[in-house]
Amino acid sequence: DYARRCAPYLVSGQVVVLHPGNFGGSIQFKQILEKEGKGNITVAETECLIYSCRKKNPVKIWIRGYKRSLRLAAFPSVETRRVLEFLRHAYPYLEPAANVLETGLSNPNPIVHTPLMVLNAGRIEGDEDFLFYWEGMTPAIGRTIEIMDEERLAVGRALGLDDMRSIYRQDRDWFAYQGGTGSNIYEAHVRNPIYQWSVAPATFDHRYLTEDIPFGLVPLEDLAEKLRHPAPTVRAIIHLANILTGKDLRREARTLADLGLDNLAVHQLLDYVDSGSRQLVEV
Amino acid sequence: DYARRCAPYLVSGQVVVLHPGNFGGSIQFKQILEKEGKGNITVAETECLIYSCRKKNPVKIWIRGYKRSLRLAAFPSVETRRVLEFLRHAYPYLEPAANVLETGLSNPNPIVHTPLMVLNAGRIEGDEDFLFYWEGMTPAIGRTIEIMDEERLAVGRALGLDDMRSIYRQDRDWFAYQGGTGSNIYEAHVRNPIYQWSVAPATFDHRYLTEDIPFGLVPLEDLAEKLRHPAPTVRAIIHLANILTGKDLRREARTLADLGLDNLAVHQLLDYVDSGSRQLVEV
Repeated sequence: DYARRCAPYLVSGQVVVLHPGNFGGSIQFKQILEKEGKGNITVAETECLIYSCRKKNPVKIWIRGYKRSLRLAAFPSVETRRVLEFLRHAYPYLEPAANVLETGLSNPNPIVHTPLMVLNAGRIEGDEDFLFYWEGMTPAIGRTIEIMDEERLAVGRALGLDDMRSIYRQDRDWFAYQGGTGSNIYEAHVRNPIYQWSVAPATFDHRYLTEDIPFGLVPLEDLAEKLRHPAPTVRAIIHLANILTGKDLRREARTLADLGLDNLAVHQLLDYVDSGSRQLVEV
Repeated sequence: DYARRCAPYLVSGQVVVLHPGNFGGSIQFKQILEKEGKGNITVAETECLIYSCRKKNPVKIWIRGYKRSLRLAAFPSVETRRVLEFLRHAYPYLEPAANVLETGLSNPNPIVHTPLMVLNAGRIEGDEDFLFYWEGMTPAIGRTIEIMDEERLAVGRALGLDDMRSIYRQDRDWFAYQGGTGSNIYEAHVRNPIYQWSVAPATFDHRYLTEDIPFGLVPLEDLAEKLRHPAPTVRAIIHLANILTGKDLRREARTLADLGLDNLAVHQLLDYVDSGSRQLVEV
């Protein structure tokens, strides 16, 4: 685990930013640092990577987009302002999120990549390459993504995260200044020049499923169940992705139980991400 | 409804064969005839259409395959032998099914067509035509179909239908003599010359979803729930097909409730399809 490997080199008072955290990333990171005797490190996370980029080779990255209005939260959230003031010297467009539940639920990758993979499964396994967004995205797949997004926002609202952005709005906030356009998820993807270069994966053993499901969709399904907000589209996509990859991605996932948070009531969960203090929540 | 329109022209003692019945077709047909005062008509159904064909224009059908070993059942099953003896003059390769639950669950179309549609959704909405089986079928889609098939066979076993064939075996029984080959669902479809001519639909508003789901998958889901044999893959495909078509295909479905059979115990259901007698089952 990264946190365990980093621990010996971290100095009291330092700030670690997970970029992005995925769901629960900074909670888990902080918990591990505490176990390693490094409780005095501040951990924060962004909702997504600030760059749109591809690794071209081990020492070269092709950056083709840069997100404005990317949100960040510290764990605990009482530290968010301080981390943000510091980071804005380098990244002036960063904005605060309510807490790490918001950043954890706001990575659009799981919601966008996974239905694009599943609903293009035949083509991904087929012989010809295709452009993941510009050719793989269709109106009906866009609608599927919007329905999954609504399931995600309902979970956010149940956690009091009323300011969470739809993926469509988030995309516009990030990319409008670079030419992002369109009036729904489908149009936003087939018209945004940032997305034109992405060639679709040729295998299901790809981070669009093997990362986005265990660290994005499964935690969302998990929370939806805990909060009794059914997320049938999320569930259907996870189920089919398990079949396509031949893996049990639910078993590889970071769940509320892994973070020791499965037995908390909602207000205890919110207390914990705000204060970071276990005393408040251990009953 | 066809049954209502046919009723005035049917003569006592006549045999009506639904070709195919889809799930519950002959039960519903017979029930309507009884209401119309034509209780003395025998109704039977096959598990699928005996021909592999396409309508080319209103007066022309292109038949490119002919199924051997197609199963038929009468409702009630006590009539199956008699109907079969008669029909074998024209269709010598027909075989008996245990009852209309078996024929109803044995149409392979819902299990094969629907994941092919859903997992090729992007391509179906895309600009280029493709061959539905020869290009749309891939190893992972074949595995998905096999898992759905296992969910279907589990429902059959729970109904005592131990002789139900897997789709793969059924396909071999039907087409081996015409060149059907391969050792799994994927290979059977991409190698069978019968399948090479099918161009994929260019819309989701197509019988592969709008018929196969309400008259095939939803009744299967319905039975699976009644019998407490979870069918998560069937459920996932129905859910995504609803989104892709923009319809609630569950609401358009023929369910156990529509047939007045939702409150029966399994042995009562089996009594009913064997004897056709409501007296035995009304408690």
